[in-house]
Amino acid sequence: MKSIGVFDSGVGGLTVVKELLRQLPAENIVYFGDTARVPYGIKSRETVIRFSIENILFLLKHEVKLICVACNTVSSFALPVIKNYFRVPIVGVLSPGVREAVYATQNKRIGVIGTKGTIKSRAYEIEIKQLDPVAKVTAVACPLFVPFAEEGWIRGDVVTTVAKQYLKPLKDAGVDTLILGCTHYPLLKQVIREVMGKNVTLIDSAQQVAMEVKKILAAEGELNKGRRGRQQFFVSDNPEWFSGLAKSFLGRPLKDVRKVNNV
Amino acid sequence: MKSIGVFDSGVGGLTVVKELLRQLPAENIVYFGDTARVPYGIKSRETVIRFSIENILFLLKHEVKLICVACNTVSSFALPVIKNYFRVPIVGVLSPGVREAVYATQNKRIGVIGTKGTIKSRAYEIEIKQLDPVAKVTAVACPLFVPFAEEGWIRGDVVTTVAKQYLKPLKDAGVDTLILGCTHYPLLKQVIREVMGKNVTLIDSAQQVAMEVKKILAAEGELNKGRRGRQQFFVSDNPEWFSGLAKSFLGRPLKDVRKVNNV
Repeated sequence: MKSIGVFDSGVGGLTVVKELLRQLPAENIVYFGDTARVPYGIKSRETVIRFSIENILFLLKHEVKLICVACNTVSSFALPVIKNYFRVPIVGVLSPGVREAVYATQNKRIGVIGTKGTIKSRAYEIEIKQLDPVAKVTAVACPLFVPFAEEGWIRGDVVTTVAKQYLKPLKDAGVDTLILGCTHYPLLKQVIREVMGKNVTLIDSAQQVAMEVKKILAAEGELNKGRRGRQQFFVSDNPEWFSGLAKSFLGRPLKDVRKVNNV
Repeated sequence: MKSIGVFDSGVGGLTVVKELLRQLPAENIVYFGDTARVPYGIKSRETVIRFSIENILFLLKHEVKLICVACNTVSSFALPVIKNYFRVPIVGVLSPGVREAVYATQNKRIGVIGTKGTIKSRAYEIEIKQLDPVAKVTAVACPLFVPFAEEGWIRGDVVTTVAKQYLKPLKDAGVDTLILGCTHYPLLKQVIREVMGKNVTLIDSAQQVAMEVKKILAAEGELNKGRRGRQQFFVSDNPEWFSGLAKSFLGRPLKDVRKVNNV
């Protein structure tokens, strides 16, 4: 039985795995986190593409039938290029979030937050405009949100003060829908909600991503039937650090995380 | 005329270059910042050693007469190992800071702040105890200080609140001397000074490192005579990002930063 391959620069992609496990419990999952080179969000397009290709080649060794790019920076920078390189279907986290946001907005003002790389790529803006040319998009990089999430500073004065500053342009623009364009950001949802107000819809794409994966596998007759699938977790560095953070991102601790060299 | 090679995981090592330029203006400098894999402070010993060896091999191609490891994580994790591998003299940032701290303290209570990797290695503690077995060392990791320095959050409520929390064990321990055990931390010196109080001596090792480099080159008859040396800056990713931050760390902007693959 072939597996679903999932990769991310580090631990953030586990928010997507959590949703895959919920919607597709019979599937086998092979996860790779590139913790030796994390984070990707501050790195160039060229480098992110190179790292992504290496990660995909690693997953292909594990008999995967589909690859899920559980990282918004990779989805923004690399997906259009790497989709053409490989035969295996590759699903990113960008398009599912965009579709949900375009569907959810009432006033056609959509906000996007993400890493510097994601925002600089303008990938969200371009894809939203393709679906709805009259939508107004405000996109803001929130570079401290990833270290905050990883260090456990997910509520309190510090993160609230920073969030207020980062999110001000989005409030000023009057967005009614905000895409959390980074797999780390769901951990800061409570603070983001407080700052944005309860009338703004927050889009966390993990749920939509899992639905898309299910649809593709169903269309290709590749859905696993039967009982619980098994999960394997690989990282390029620091399995203990990854295991320690897994609880926050996956909702349960991970024991068997293996360190490998992917290059 | 051979050069002094300097490497760091990213941009922090420029605080050391600044001091080398001041004390040794006639020397040529070749700098390498591993910005494709930055930061090192959250990574394992094994991985930091592997990256450091690759960086040294890159510098050796550039005819260096001495290598300065301008990164505390590398100095803590890798230096004892890699010193034995290579013929070129290798100077770290750890020992010079330790010597100065042991000399400066009156009450024999020394504090150390650094990345998770540096603190976990206990390298400072071990080296301080070797010089002064009765010294009491309190060491604390400050993982958010690097992203704060790189994002320009170097004063104000946010960084002060975080600094108060991180530095509390050091105040409680009554240290009279605090080693800034990360090349990024001099940028936060003002906040650290406010929190620690003006009676605590802050040790920023860059000055001592440059003195040590000078001493070794003099002893080997390798000091350059003559006019201004030239500097070359290489990075493994994002030369624009590096150039942009150079002003804060080096005190002047950098124009000619070249991107290379070091592996």
